[in-house]
Amino acid sequence: MNAETPTIPHGQPRGPVLPKGLDTPCLVIDLDIAEANARRMAEAMAARGVALRPHIKTHKSVALARLQLAAGAVGLTVGTLGEAEVMADGGCTDIFIAYPLWLSGRKADRLRSLLERPGLKLSLGIDTVAGAQQIARAVGEAADRLQVLVEIDPRYHRTGADPKRAGEVARGARDAGLAVAGIFTHGGHGYAGVAAAARAAEDEVETLQQAAQDLSRMGIEPRVISAGSSPTAMAAARPPINEMRPGVYLLGDRQQVHLGGSPPDGVAVALAATVVSDAVEGQVVLDAGAKSLTKDVPAYLEGHGFLPAYPDTVIGRVSDYHGVVPLPEGARRPEVGEVVAVIPNHACPVVDLFDSFIATRSGEVVGRWPVDARGRSG
Amino acid sequence: MNAETPTIPHGQPRGPVLPKGLDTPCLVIDLDIAEANARRMAEAMAARGVALRPHIKTHKSVALARLQLAAGAVGLTVGTLGEAEVMADGGCTDIFIAYPLWLSGRKADRLRSLLERPGLKLSLGIDTVAGAQQIARAVGEAADRLQVLVEIDPRYHRTGADPKRAGEVARGARDAGLAVAGIFTHGGHGYAGVAAAARAAEDEVETLQQAAQDLSRMGIEPRVISAGSSPTAMAAARPPINEMRPGVYLLGDRQQVHLGGSPPDGVAVALAATVVSDAVEGQVVLDAGAKSLTKDVPAYLEGHGFLPAYPDTVIGRVSDYHGVVPLPEGARRPEVGEVVAVIPNHACPVVDLFDSFIATRSGEVVGRWPVDARGRSG
Repeated sequence: MNAETPTIPHGQPRGPVLPKGLDTPCLVIDLDIAEANARRMAEAMAARGVALRPHIKTHKSVALARLQLAAGAVGLTVGTLGEAEVMADGGCTDIFIAYPLWLSGRKADRLRSLLERPGLKLSLGIDTVAGAQQIARAVGEAADRLQVLVEIDPRYHRTGADPKRAGEVARGARDAGLAVAGIFTHGGHGYAGVAAAARAAEDEVETLQQAAQDLSRMGIEPRVISAGSSPTAMAAARPPINEMRPGVYLLGDRQQVHLGGSPPDGVAVALAATVVSDAVEGQVVLDAGAKSLTKDVPAYLEGHGFLPAYPDTVIGRVSDYHGVVPLPEGARRPEVGEVVAVIPNHACPVVDLFDSFIATRSGEVVGRWPVDARGRSG
Repeated sequence: MNAETPTIPHGQPRGPVLPKGLDTPCLVIDLDIAEANARRMAEAMAARGVALRPHIKTHKSVALARLQLAAGAVGLTVGTLGEAEVMADGGCTDIFIAYPLWLSGRKADRLRSLLERPGLKLSLGIDTVAGAQQIARAVGEAADRLQVLVEIDPRYHRTGADPKRAGEVARGARDAGLAVAGIFTHGGHGYAGVAAAARAAEDEVETLQQAAQDLSRMGIEPRVISAGSSPTAMAAARPPINEMRPGVYLLGDRQQVHLGGSPPDGVAVALAATVVSDAVEGQVVLDAGAKSLTKDVPAYLEGHGFLPAYPDTVIGRVSDYHGVVPLPEGARRPEVGEVVAVIPNHACPVVDLFDSFIATRSGEVVGRWPVDARGRSG
């Protein structure tokens, strides 16, 4: 099953200290760790002369976005119109929707309404001429308050124009009346493993370079050349790239630690779960299942979550409200009634299951903070 | 990868007709289809002399629970204290928490508070003597307003007492001051495939029979003998079982149609998604990804969702907001901007991602209904 040798290249995640008395399952985020992550990334990008525009889909929290802006981010990246609305409501003034929006339903009205907000600088992604044209038609005269960036396929093959056709898409957008600010990639194929992450960073640099040349050929100079994913951020932050859009780095997760996107002590998020049953021999069962942890399991990780206090075990299988932890022979085991921390495989879809999280500093509760954009997937 | 031959034993799901003008991604539930499903299950159970107590974790909607009660259900099953609170708030008066609750955090207070509600009949699951004792300690004198059912492991090996030790657990609960109303199983191993579903139904019948005898040996007569899962419901509804707790049957999904738990025209739920990109050759991309569809893929299904209008395609991969649909050579394909229906693999975790759904009847919008217990995983 494993695409990579199941070694632990960067160590095991540590995760936050849990406060006492939690009603489980619940999400805990340590602000000290998140702030350190925000600073580390901001400093690394500043040292490379690259602007930082973090993707907030990981945490969906206005308060955590402000923390990133305070650490030096130039603006925010979002994936949906709904996330943009929530962040604008929260007072964020520079938002890039890194998604080829198609304005179905009320989305044209919603986009126009965002463009009418005073003081909001809004940009969005396009990856076809037809996509640019429907945006231009929908926003009409408000087009002069909008900037678009052409998405480039960095060999991930999800969305994005072929770099050799980037100029054609940019020209189509300009001809439709849109201001083309630049180009962007998301090297999501870097999530396939450590070697893939290194390759994806190279792919982002190369394809953005090709695309920038193709735009120049059309007489369009891309001001913003933007790449982004947490595992590729450090390696790809070099010319011609001048903006980086990592997301998960703020919270970290099990996957990022494996890929080198987070240090083992950089994981700010954990699920608190209670051991509810040891009725079946050879295992214990947690009250965290697929509705708290998702079923997101990359090929290079075993199980549905890691227990830092019991590093010889993982959550072997999940149903909606159950997480089954098989106990290897002789392994130390949690007792029934015990509350344990679980490091999720992938923070983004997990945070999106919770309306709020327990904000802590070194195991002390600071407050219960809303996941403001939870469920805003469109 | 496939545990079963990838045939289509029961046909492909049809799903609801989508209304026009939807803001995607969004969840659509056809009430005509759901009502027909509620009636069909209620009639089947009535014909077998088995009480129907549907599990509401699939839909988490008070309105849909009422629809089930109106069709003849004797009460509701829930998986968490939070779901019980929401259904009690919604006026439901007979609730079984089919889960071995461990009262961490505020849960003891919350359980006592539920027991104080006038007119609410509450029961809950236990699977160890220690579990029963902490419930008894927490509820104190309110124990006489609570009934417990001993969970039996039907060879699924998740939670539940070994049937040969069921009497011991029941006696422990009685000695702790709790009223033991009966025994229950969940044959979740039936989800492994068509043959497994048939076997799981037999396992539920056999293990409940053994457990009932073991309780009798201790002088405790189980009044309620309850089994439940949608794929096993019809086959397991026979003596000694006198109560059935299916959940997914009300909405159906791709998995249920494969397993025979829903007829192809019994799928009431779909995700509406818009084609947002065809920039990469050989595929289109939908605005429904892992945050709308989850990554729940049983071994016998290909991909992350089925498109009834384009039956030669599936969603091949998902990231948070993207669903990539590879287009087989010569297959009919949806156009960019088109809104398509997607039948989810597994309804339960998908519904739990949405705060509300579009209620329809044959493609006409009836209203936007809340998913009242969304996110109430504890």
